[in-house]
Amino acid sequence: MRIDVLTIFPKMFDAVLGESIIKRAVNKGIVKIRLYDLRDFTDDKHGKVDDKPFGGGAGMVMAVQPIYNALLSVTGKTSKGNKGVKKDLKVILLTPQGKRLDQGLANRLAKCKHLILICGHYEGVDERVRHLVTDEISIGDYVLTGGELPAMVVIDAITRLVPSVLGDEDSSKFDSFQGGLIEHPHYTRPRIFKDMSVPEVLLSGDHDAIKKWRHKEAVKRTKERRPDLLKNKN
Amino acid sequence: MRIDVLTIFPKMFDAVLGESIIKRAVNKGIVKIRLYDLRDFTDDKHGKVDDKPFGGGAGMVMAVQPIYNALLSVTGKTSKGNKGVKKDLKVILLTPQGKRLDQGLANRLAKCKHLILICGHYEGVDERVRHLVTDEISIGDYVLTGGELPAMVVIDAITRLVPSVLGDEDSSKFDSFQGGLIEHPHYTRPRIFKDMSVPEVLLSGDHDAIKKWRHKEAVKRTKERRPDLLKNKN
Repeated sequence: MRIDVLTIFPKMFDAVLGESIIKRAVNKGIVKIRLYDLRDFTDDKHGKVDDKPFGGGAGMVMAVQPIYNALLSVTGKTSKGNKGVKKDLKVILLTPQGKRLDQGLANRLAKCKHLILICGHYEGVDERVRHLVTDEISIGDYVLTGGELPAMVVIDAITRLVPSVLGDEDSSKFDSFQGGLIEHPHYTRPRIFKDMSVPEVLLSGDHDAIKKWRHKEAVKRTKERRPDLLKNKN
Repeated sequence: MRIDVLTIFPKMFDAVLGESIIKRAVNKGIVKIRLYDLRDFTDDKHGKVDDKPFGGGAGMVMAVQPIYNALLSVTGKTSKGNKGVKKDLKVILLTPQGKRLDQGLANRLAKCKHLILICGHYEGVDERVRHLVTDEISIGDYVLTGGELPAMVVIDAITRLVPSVLGDEDSSKFDSFQGGLIEHPHYTRPRIFKDMSVPEVLLSGDHDAIKKWRHKEAVKRTKERRPDLLKNKN
């Protein structure tokens, strides 16, 4: 899988890409991540990539031209007119107005060969950028400074789903949301900590009983915390 | 505002805290962010902070002891038994099972004096940690490697809402979600780009007409993309 990121803050990605699962996937050559600084693609003589909004108002708006040129450079063309045609390339704008990321969408994105992630000002990107992309994705109903953290969230969520990235192949199958339920409780050592004990069944060695207990707890917890997930399931 | 972050990857935060709005807020002294490495608080002689789950299964579970000790060190006590009592301190576990972050929750968190954010393995934290916290927050219905990116998202979402952080005081008032609508389209220079023009009204100088157009477009866009927001509004 190849992931290209267009951003005005390429350095923000260093520390995140240099740790943990993503680092492992990159080192194994399973995922290739390239960062492009949008400032390298502006035609503005002062190097600007944003400007005041037409019609007035607060905040700056990210301009379409640097993004257009960067896409040309990365792909050799824009995706305009090719929406939905190229299944192996998705050009994604991170924006609070986009389709909300969930585990199902992460599963689908993890099967793509090539993703281009565009990080704009979260407060405003020139409307015409929407015509250059195949998808708009939001990580949740809140506003952030820019699309950088959302891009990192997307990279992290999908990288761990790409086959052979996680050490234990089964590890992502039982994640929260994968089965339409949030996860059962977990316990590790010590058995007793400050008067709080591990449930007896988990120490019993009875795998069948443990499986039943975990399923029961997952259902109970989902009912308590996210009844909407159970409704969607039915 | 003071924000303490408990994590096994403190370096992941460097680049993010060193850029943009958060850096400005920290430099102005409006927000103080401190990072604590959970490995400094483990009693395990090999420095481990996680272990296999009781009852078997894939993945590692973050242990309660290092988190307990780190909380003791940061606050002088744990919040056990004090749930909801101390309004000025929130101890937050980032977990996909938590309450979903939205702009309303970000607004409320931005008014707190002191937040402690606990970043665990997203796949599993010892259940007993839940008894040490006041809140559990999720940034969305997807699973990530750890709570680090979610903590950064929370920090970014709330920092820009803290008064006097944004250069233009009004800038966050008109964000998507603040008025129950997603935002109207934005345009900046040039007026025409690859046969795509800026709507005439935005160039008219008629502020009343611009205001009406923007509201109409925001409602239209919300209807198209997020009818659920309109339903919640009524």
